[in-house]
Amino acid sequence: MSEAALLRRLFDAALAAADPAAMLKDFLPEPPKGRTIVVGGGKASARMAEALEAAWDGPLEGLVVTRYGHACPCESIEIVEAAHPVPDAAGEAGARRMLEMVSGLTEDDLVIALISGGGSALLALPEEGLTLADKQAVNTALLRSGAHIGEMNVVRKHLSAIKGGRLAAACHPARVVALMISDVPGDQPGVIASGPTVGEASTPADAVAILRKYAIDPPEAVARHLEKSGGCPAPDDPLLARVENRLIAAPQMSLEAAAETALAAGVTPMILGDALEGESRDVGIVMAGIARQVLRHGQPLPRPCVLLSGGETTVTVRGDGRGGRNVEFLLSLAIALDGAPVHAIACDTDGVDGAEEVAGAVIGPTTLARAREAGLVPAEELARNNGHGFFAALGDQVVTGPTLTNVNDFRAVLVP
Amino acid sequence: MSEAALLRRLFDAALAAADPAAMLKDFLPEPPKGRTIVVGGGKASARMAEALEAAWDGPLEGLVVTRYGHACPCESIEIVEAAHPVPDAAGEAGARRMLEMVSGLTEDDLVIALISGGGSALLALPEEGLTLADKQAVNTALLRSGAHIGEMNVVRKHLSAIKGGRLAAACHPARVVALMISDVPGDQPGVIASGPTVGEASTPADAVAILRKYAIDPPEAVARHLEKSGGCPAPDDPLLARVENRLIAAPQMSLEAAAETALAAGVTPMILGDALEGESRDVGIVMAGIARQVLRHGQPLPRPCVLLSGGETTVTVRGDGRGGRNVEFLLSLAIALDGAPVHAIACDTDGVDGAEEVAGAVIGPTTLARAREAGLVPAEELARNNGHGFFAALGDQVVTGPTLTNVNDFRAVLVP
Repeated sequence: MSEAALLRRLFDAALAAADPAAMLKDFLPEPPKGRTIVVGGGKASARMAEALEAAWDGPLEGLVVTRYGHACPCESIEIVEAAHPVPDAAGEAGARRMLEMVSGLTEDDLVIALISGGGSALLALPEEGLTLADKQAVNTALLRSGAHIGEMNVVRKHLSAIKGGRLAAACHPARVVALMISDVPGDQPGVIASGPTVGEASTPADAVAILRKYAIDPPEAVARHLEKSGGCPAPDDPLLARVENRLIAAPQMSLEAAAETALAAGVTPMILGDALEGESRDVGIVMAGIARQVLRHGQPLPRPCVLLSGGETTVTVRGDGRGGRNVEFLLSLAIALDGAPVHAIACDTDGVDGAEEVAGAVIGPTTLARAREAGLVPAEELARNNGHGFFAALGDQVVTGPTLTNVNDFRAVLVP
Repeated sequence: MSEAALLRRLFDAALAAADPAAMLKDFLPEPPKGRTIVVGGGKASARMAEALEAAWDGPLEGLVVTRYGHACPCESIEIVEAAHPVPDAAGEAGARRMLEMVSGLTEDDLVIALISGGGSALLALPEEGLTLADKQAVNTALLRSGAHIGEMNVVRKHLSAIKGGRLAAACHPARVVALMISDVPGDQPGVIASGPTVGEASTPADAVAILRKYAIDPPEAVARHLEKSGGCPAPDDPLLARVENRLIAAPQMSLEAAAETALAAGVTPMILGDALEGESRDVGIVMAGIARQVLRHGQPLPRPCVLLSGGETTVTVRGDGRGGRNVEFLLSLAIALDGAPVHAIACDTDGVDGAEEVAGAVIGPTTLARAREAGLVPAEELARNNGHGFFAALGDQVVTGPTLTNVNDFRAVLVP
């Protein structure tokens, strides 16, 4: 098997571990005495609903909200498509109907919540007395204020009728099993899609304090709401006593699957991190440094080996090229390796790196030479953030189509 | 022992492995039948000369060129101080006298060459018929042209009377033993101080081709010289048959010494790379991601462990602070770790990080909290590149004084 083929096999193993069609069935609860209602939202929720219908023994009903274009054919579960990342009325209406469906359930009923990244925007339903415009005004002010993402989420949760455990609380007294796909560093359930089934430790008073800290003057309705609201249910709220959150896919699980596949191929894997961050081109330079250490000193492990990592790097856009963080990482890695005998793959597990329907690409020792033969100057292509253009010209793109799941980026650096 | 004390001990082990006073004696040849002449240049050359005098059994004579302020008391070896990184007449005169000293030697004589980083500028002697101004004109044009460092060095070597093996060739027929301290990625002897004792594979025609490639029109004397010059001696030149290059200190050796010390303290070491590069703040973010993987998943190795690395990161200066690449790395690392139970040290092994006589600093889980108590906003301090100011305010600087050696940066990230 060629190095490129092995790398593609590792990526396919990572994708399979994150694909509801392959693994959701392993995480299902027993069917209940009463009804089974399906709810949830996120970029993978339709794919999860489809897998659930295929695996479930018994009647199902319910509704999930996914992104436009991410629907899957379902028989009993309604699929609503809505806007992401900026919420729209379709998502709001879907979320409202979802809450109606879970009201009036009994102890014999079961709610299966299908939660994945993007669910926060797709299920944007303001608490009673608030409008989407109120929430958006606060949101915009927070984004401008320099508040941390953690602080923003505290405020957002206390203005929502769904987030921070409210969806699960609305299901009481039914049993709730949430199946979650994580695309966030740390995999904290309360952070994935803002935790519709996860109790929240913060209070409305905390939200008020954060707004004050950043001198944000919220709309009148928001201020009044935070004053009188009981807030999200706490983690120990009795309304959440019958809620269970199950992580069914996460970056680490996909990296472990790739590691097993590498081992079976006789290549020693090392997982460096499931949530590596940093500017893509600099992450590429660091990874090249580690690969060179393998070549020169057999450290941190001897050849043949593969360095695996996940997470989400960032691209500071400087040029006018067609790019994405994975191809930017790869182009920088190739330049730093300068023809050294190292191969790599880097892809977004949702199948879309940046704005193109291309998951990523592969590189090898001949990448730079072939590029120069094709009239490309690699450093210039990197300077204009033209990763997709670069790898398209070489025929080294990795195309999967939309995978309808997302456990963030996948990187494998192979030193054969 | 506290984590900070352990980290300082690791750094001290790295320094000791790079200190000629501690280890140069282990690399000496047998004294010759004839005379022993000492030559060389670099930031560590005076310290090396001092160590040589202390360890050598027999008469010594000679001259080495070091940077202003880097002299050491020597009895038989003359120490010349000169300018770095921009050459001056003192270095040129020292290099010329050095060549005179090694002319007319016999087969019974031994030349010990003491080579370290900085030697390229400190021993800047143009070939006959060229002036320092000629060389500088070409140099300036190359720097502006976008030529790679490798290409620049080819041109520089063929204009020099010392570099690219010429110093060693001048010693013929004496035996030559060069003792080298590496501060360059890859530790290639021909790159350290431009390889005064190392044969050069390129030719003057290559130098001409590089100047043409970047449309550089060199001074008349340079063009003429490159046309008629025989160039540097090739690696297999008979004039170099009795030359031996010994690497006596290098980033990897210092990392290995720190790794042994960690192991003795019950902490498992992992060397990630002896030549990691990239923007300091992004290298910090990546290293935080790996440390978090240790905390969450016991990968790439279980606690207690320490991640060691060397090499030279870069700082893109954006602010008006007092900084250096090691303190910038640490400040970014601390922000990314956000109080996680991880400790780290990062220092320049020459004792000077950036422009201050401070080697670097240490961080721990309390760094951010103590900074905020002191009225500092860590992200703002990083934005203005104020690493030294930040760690000075906390009392967390590491000060060694000038170490008179240099194996580049030393980083240790400890997860206890």
